[in-house]
Amino acid sequence: MSYHKPEAKTVQDLKDLAQKLRIHSINATQASKSGHPTSCASIAEIMSVLFFQQLRLNLKHPRDPSSDRFILSKGHAAPILYAAWAEAGLFPIEDLNNLRKIDSDLEGHPTPRLNFIDVGTGSLGQGVAVGAGMAYVGKNFDKADYRTYVVVGDGESAEGSIWESLHFAGHYKLDNLCVIFDVNRLGQSEATSLQHKLDVYRDRLEAFGFNAVVVDGHDIEELSKAFHCAAITKSKPTAIIAKTFKGKDFPNIEDLDNWHGKPLGDKAAEVVKHLQGLIVNKNVKLAPKPVPKTGAAPEVDISNVKLSSPPSYKLGDSIATRLAYGTALAKIGQNNQRVVALDGDTKNSTFSDKLKNLDPERYIECFIAEQNLVGVAVGAACRRRTVAFVSTFATFFTRAFDQIRMGAISQTNVNFVGSHCGCSIGEDGPSQMGLEDIAMFRTIPGSTIFYPSDAVSTERAVELAANTKGVCFIRTSRPNTCVIYDNEEPFTIGRGKVVRQKSSDEVLLIGAGITLYECLAAADQLEKNCITARVIDPFTVKPLDAELIIEHGKQCGGRVVVVEDHYQQGGLGEAVLSALAGERNFVVKHLFVPTVPRSGPPSVLIDMFGISARHVVNAVNEILKD
Amino acid sequence: MSYHKPEAKTVQDLKDLAQKLRIHSINATQASKSGHPTSCASIAEIMSVLFFQQLRLNLKHPRDPSSDRFILSKGHAAPILYAAWAEAGLFPIEDLNNLRKIDSDLEGHPTPRLNFIDVGTGSLGQGVAVGAGMAYVGKNFDKADYRTYVVVGDGESAEGSIWESLHFAGHYKLDNLCVIFDVNRLGQSEATSLQHKLDVYRDRLEAFGFNAVVVDGHDIEELSKAFHCAAITKSKPTAIIAKTFKGKDFPNIEDLDNWHGKPLGDKAAEVVKHLQGLIVNKNVKLAPKPVPKTGAAPEVDISNVKLSSPPSYKLGDSIATRLAYGTALAKIGQNNQRVVALDGDTKNSTFSDKLKNLDPERYIECFIAEQNLVGVAVGAACRRRTVAFVSTFATFFTRAFDQIRMGAISQTNVNFVGSHCGCSIGEDGPSQMGLEDIAMFRTIPGSTIFYPSDAVSTERAVELAANTKGVCFIRTSRPNTCVIYDNEEPFTIGRGKVVRQKSSDEVLLIGAGITLYECLAAADQLEKNCITARVIDPFTVKPLDAELIIEHGKQCGGRVVVVEDHYQQGGLGEAVLSALAGERNFVVKHLFVPTVPRSGPPSVLIDMFGISARHVVNAVNEILKD
Repeated sequence: MSYHKPEAKTVQDLKDLAQKLRIHSINATQASKSGHPTSCASIAEIMSVLFFQQLRLNLKHPRDPSSDRFILSKGHAAPILYAAWAEAGLFPIEDLNNLRKIDSDLEGHPTPRLNFIDVGTGSLGQGVAVGAGMAYVGKNFDKADYRTYVVVGDGESAEGSIWESLHFAGHYKLDNLCVIFDVNRLGQSEATSLQHKLDVYRDRLEAFGFNAVVVDGHDIEELSKAFHCAAITKSKPTAIIAKTFKGKDFPNIEDLDNWHGKPLGDKAAEVVKHLQGLIVNKNVKLAPKPVPKTGAAPEVDISNVKLSSPPSYKLGDSIATRLAYGTALAKIGQNNQRVVALDGDTKNSTFSDKLKNLDPERYIECFIAEQNLVGVAVGAACRRRTVAFVSTFATFFTRAFDQIRMGAISQTNVNFVGSHCGCSIGEDGPSQMGLEDIAMFRTIPGSTIFYPSDAVSTERAVELAANTKGVCFIRTSRPNTCVIYDNEEPFTIGRGKVVRQKSSDEVLLIGAGITLYECLAAADQLEKNCITARVIDPFTVKPLDAELIIEHGKQCGGRVVVVEDHYQQGGLGEAVLSALAGERNFVVKHLFVPTVPRSGPPSVLIDMFGISARHVVNAVNEILKD
Repeated sequence: MSYHKPEAKTVQDLKDLAQKLRIHSINATQASKSGHPTSCASIAEIMSVLFFQQLRLNLKHPRDPSSDRFILSKGHAAPILYAAWAEAGLFPIEDLNNLRKIDSDLEGHPTPRLNFIDVGTGSLGQGVAVGAGMAYVGKNFDKADYRTYVVVGDGESAEGSIWESLHFAGHYKLDNLCVIFDVNRLGQSEATSLQHKLDVYRDRLEAFGFNAVVVDGHDIEELSKAFHCAAITKSKPTAIIAKTFKGKDFPNIEDLDNWHGKPLGDKAAEVVKHLQGLIVNKNVKLAPKPVPKTGAAPEVDISNVKLSSPPSYKLGDSIATRLAYGTALAKIGQNNQRVVALDGDTKNSTFSDKLKNLDPERYIECFIAEQNLVGVAVGAACRRRTVAFVSTFATFFTRAFDQIRMGAISQTNVNFVGSHCGCSIGEDGPSQMGLEDIAMFRTIPGSTIFYPSDAVSTERAVELAANTKGVCFIRTSRPNTCVIYDNEEPFTIGRGKVVRQKSSDEVLLIGAGITLYECLAAADQLEKNCITARVIDPFTVKPLDAELIIEHGKQCGGRVVVVEDHYQQGGLGEAVLSALAGERNFVVKHLFVPTVPRSGPPSVLIDMFGISARHVVNAVNEILKD
């Protein structure tokens, strides 16, 4: 594949198209009275070359699994991305004037509400991880020819997440990935720290394992050659470091401060006129390359994923839910070849290593870099190529909250599994304890949160998560817990289980994970004093089985005690309170971890921080006065 | 300051001390039956040279503002850090056997419960940011001689946060910072991705602006020379890249897999015996260097910070609370020279640029790297050197949730200010909208959350935050809101305001920020239908004024409507529900943003997503049926 210099006519056409993209970006942001035309201008030639020379696209089916992937990490340049697709013929140019309108999906930043967008961008520094995930799948699972391109802003390249992902891409030799750095020198509020120091970018990228090519980002021929270089470079991803100017070709605006995120206002007409004057062929029209027939991605089916064999435990067995997670992961991995696991060097604690043991190729070690871990998973799950399970300690998902948040905007189906929740982990101390993970995952729109209490329900949670749309989170525990469900017990999202019940029950106890067992122990103790308590295992915290809780709560005189190994805010307790908000005549006592815990034996900590059976008994005695 | 090779006796003493530190680490983890002795062993010589040759410490006052700073970023090596301080004479060696016990502050990972620890570590990749913050203060504010040392594990150097911080330190030429990379090759579950590729570390660090020195991390003389090189290198921070071995000098354990995070068990005695055999002088005793009298840090007073002038608005003025934040920040900055602001290239949106305009030296631009931004602030606020205000868009703090979480363990007093909350930001779309920020900050133990609704209360929130211990979060809004409080109105943490009240009130409305005004508008509309509603502005969401809400809620028939520009989970609504959990006879309707919003005009979005006055009126009509 030797390099053929593009013909002069092609070069001029691509130049003209770049100017048209600039004009569209100005006009669209004029119509919306907001947006980032100068951030579009710096990548006009990059977009022109990408969309009309490089990318192999399917306009009839923009999410064709065999087509090239494109991610605009600097999502605020959305107008020029929309303009490129419009010029490519996907939708009418006039639609661009609906930018940012309430009834248009051409939003301020791209989201997959648009059929040509794979993931939402706009929170900076996340595009490379997603692109790396797609490239990993393309190279290792699909073994297909499609390539992945990511355009990154220089401002956002200060984000550490970018460097996690560059390291990942270099380490796994993702030569089907090309990252274009738009080094336009200016951030939002001042110049970037590296300004136009292209050699620093090059040195860093080379040190991170990239083939790094510095180009004039406004030169069609240099770009064209650089993309060719990327395509023929083997065992290394390529970074194209493009020297550009913000507001390029906008007279009296180009390369000047204070033009970030502003439409051109009364300067627009003059700038558009100037740009029009730069166009040689006003009727220029180019089509993107089609997707070749060869090197296609295989068809895959990720529906109806099942455990290869049902849970097989004995009632009363003592098994950590984190271990049951690993067992179930391997089982669904046996059932479906597209089940993959990702972890951040905690696989022997989360037990995701059970999938690695089954099939090392389907385990992606992401090392200690949780932002990239989550981003790669989001990328891997795009276009329904894989069923991705991501695991680490529950609390370390806080490191990637922004990526998970954006995952919801991206309509991802990634499954998260957080082990080592709560102070019940013991001696390692508070830095390792997940005490805010339920709160975090509950805020994710459309999320499903499983908090299984025994091994049987954990296996079913894994199976359900694999088939559930949206973000799923499974919270697993470090200590062993008793198997309380038959292997045949059916589990459903949003349906809890009444695990202890008498007609005389005066109070309803709700616990999950280790606190379910504290509730059961408390009920035993209370019964000695002739107080009987009902106990509910919610199974899913979101959606919560409000109906069950209300029904049984009413039967218990409206007295509810919720106990959780989590902080007060946003966890199971507040989920129960939300479920009961519309009900008069309920009173709820909420036991939770009230402050930063410390190192110590699990049972001592549970008691010290107020969530042991003894505290449940006390709470019941208190609430019975109500 | 030319280099003097240490005498042979000194070298041998430091070697002997290193072995003693290894032995202490083994013994302590044997006693606790958990911990990471092999991760201690790889840094034994580093710790010996640091503590007994380099660091200038004050054993009587370990947090002496003039003493050198030391941060063990790889917090799981805590036992050897404790051992070093014990050998230095801070506490008895025997105390080391209390490691991880419930009644000892020698926890599994270091926390400032210990008087010689500045910040909690244990969530990996955070130490360099904190160290950079300390070094920035030392160089630019204290202008003192103390130096900052951070020991980083090679596993954690995959964290992007590290690279954000290295870039920051290089950019600001923090030559008083020395970062030691303990390249011991092995992670938790497998080898690190770079193993012993020291040249790759060196190339990366040099490209990130460091003086990078590769050494044999077990060679006292090489370490000694490298630290000297660090001390004399100007305008660049230094990285010492130490080639080490995990479990060094532990026969049949050194450099082997599957020894992460495990005490040596029945191999301990043999290993200890072997190590003892390596010690030449069993009675070796060295003292750390004292803190020199010259180059001391100045005394500072950060108590009782006040607005330099009271709020000065007219009732009915229309001013965004984010703008009032900037005004107040400059005012407290005028009052106290130790007030500093940090931002991630959003200063012209958050209005933190108002402090920069007052005094550019007290503004720290952290560019688009929120994890480092937060870590630097935590470091800057250590030892009460500054009153730090960190701002960015509220939703971008999700990027640093783990740093904020660790901030609480670190007992930090950093103040966070998040602008652009909720769908009321409008056209930029969901990626930019803070809709989970209250939930996130509420989970932080000991946090205070201000959600001021007008300019007057915002200024008071800033003043209160500056003087409040623990994490403070101030949520500001993008749109203008009406000034509703007199300039003299007093504000107190945990005290809400009844802003509309009649004896006939049948329902209590609670809103904050833009939704307070929707509540007021709804109350106006309801009154036309002869329904009167009480309205409360909570001012602080945490602590919430439960007493006020219960009192007035009861007066309104137990009917409460809460409206917020936030998702359902963990926000103001669930805070109110928690406050009312113990009360029977309340019914709460909660209006919130139910799903991922989109781009559009603020007023249209507020209505589309169910939190406008019209929806409040409907909710009231519904609740009155109860």
